[in-house]
Amino acid sequence: MIRGSTALVAHIGYPTEAFKAPMIYNPYFEQQGIDAVVVPMGVKADDYPQVLAQLRKVTNLRGALITMPHKVTTVSLVDEVTPTARIAGASNAILLRPDGSLLGDMFDGAGFVRGVQGKGLRIEGSSALVVGCGGVGSAIAASLAAAGVGTIGLYDATPAAAEGLADRLRGHYPALEVRVGSNDPSGYALVVNGTPLGMKDGDPLPMDVSRISPSTLVGEVVMKQEMTAFLRAVAARGCKYQVGTDMLFEQIPAYLEFFGFPTTTPENLRAVARLTY
Amino acid sequence: MIRGSTALVAHIGYPTEAFKAPMIYNPYFEQQGIDAVVVPMGVKADDYPQVLAQLRKVTNLRGALITMPHKVTTVSLVDEVTPTARIAGASNAILLRPDGSLLGDMFDGAGFVRGVQGKGLRIEGSSALVVGCGGVGSAIAASLAAAGVGTIGLYDATPAAAEGLADRLRGHYPALEVRVGSNDPSGYALVVNGTPLGMKDGDPLPMDVSRISPSTLVGEVVMKQEMTAFLRAVAARGCKYQVGTDMLFEQIPAYLEFFGFPTTTPENLRAVARLTY
Repeated sequence: MIRGSTALVAHIGYPTEAFKAPMIYNPYFEQQGIDAVVVPMGVKADDYPQVLAQLRKVTNLRGALITMPHKVTTVSLVDEVTPTARIAGASNAILLRPDGSLLGDMFDGAGFVRGVQGKGLRIEGSSALVVGCGGVGSAIAASLAAAGVGTIGLYDATPAAAEGLADRLRGHYPALEVRVGSNDPSGYALVVNGTPLGMKDGDPLPMDVSRISPSTLVGEVVMKQEMTAFLRAVAARGCKYQVGTDMLFEQIPAYLEFFGFPTTTPENLRAVARLTY
Repeated sequence: MIRGSTALVAHIGYPTEAFKAPMIYNPYFEQQGIDAVVVPMGVKADDYPQVLAQLRKVTNLRGALITMPHKVTTVSLVDEVTPTARIAGASNAILLRPDGSLLGDMFDGAGFVRGVQGKGLRIEGSSALVVGCGGVGSAIAASLAAAGVGTIGLYDATPAAAEGLADRLRGHYPALEVRVGSNDPSGYALVVNGTPLGMKDGDPLPMDVSRISPSTLVGEVVMKQEMTAFLRAVAARGCKYQVGTDMLFEQIPAYLEFFGFPTTTPENLRAVARLTY
């Protein structure tokens, strides 16, 4: 129950309608008696720097969950970022520290990697295609590299986004084979939709599904619906897949620790969550 | 349940620990299936103008409940204020209108007056002493004048606060007898503590309780505890009294209408509220 002493975690993005985190964190906080609440706050891109600069003054703010379209710009708006966020070029969590400074971190990639590992994928020496090199796609690529993937393909409708990520990956992981510029999924053990395609009905698919092998594991980041058109198409081909919310549930324990709350398992979070579609 | 579509009503003040509104509004919203939430946001006085200027950009913000120490400054920070807020010199509610403008209104006084009327006080032609002429005290004085009180006494530790309120009252209500400068409660039908005295253990009483007649109705605005030291003292003298939360519950239906939410009765609000002391 929200009261005067309740710590606020702002969930910042725009638009807010597809936000899922409040329906996971808040039931968990209630289950555990943790005096905190996650609250959606819609902030447009142009307004975000100024809003964040003032929101940090809110005395009961513990931090913020950051989502589209702010994950990339957050890196330049906080006082410090973790190495993971630096490589990803994006931040999806901000901690307001006791000294008033803001620390940015990035959990999308870690959640995604923990999820596909839990589905049996051995990442070390394997190959992955990441389509969409914005905040979440870059984070997944960074975490795949950290987990030892051997070959990574990067594609973005804005070529410079893929090139920039490729440069950062090569700088940190000289042994990693980085390919840039094709969204052809053939031959990869893991294929990821890291674009927002699938948020809206009628969006085109992010890649040519007919070229995905049935033995390929497919990951999705869109959470607006559990089974996006892309996932339905790969499921019809016989592929194993990871839905967007898997990434979400896997990363939440890491978030909880980051914010200084008691942590739990993804399984408990799934059990308490009240998601509606 | 908070979700991505939930409308946000920010409850702004500092400190936040004594806030009661979230424990009333939120259970009511839940009872009625209203997709909105009241969230405490601690903002210090120096930060408030800038925080409010940015918070108004939050796309799911419906408005704000304003409490100490911001009620007076709010009048100069919004685009328009109602006549009630103008006379009170304070605003405890802000509506973010569809055109992006902010409207300030003031409900403390109306809630207080409805409460004492419900306890049998006939205000027309009666007399009242208001000790503490900040935002809430001024609002109560303005609403008592609007309800036809014949004589009003005003006292504030800062004499200019009482004088300024007296001038505004005299300007709007030429027939009203306004006395300024004494907190002697003898002879008044209604006596109000409009100061924050009682928020902290060991606070002095706001007036000389031994000079309050047992026939006087006594009102309190402090809500941190139901029975403040002041109310315990007047109860011991046999006075009828109104606790701080009475004013709160009486004013909430007016707030709900102001924000465009379905309204209800104070009785229902008391029934659903989950207040803890």
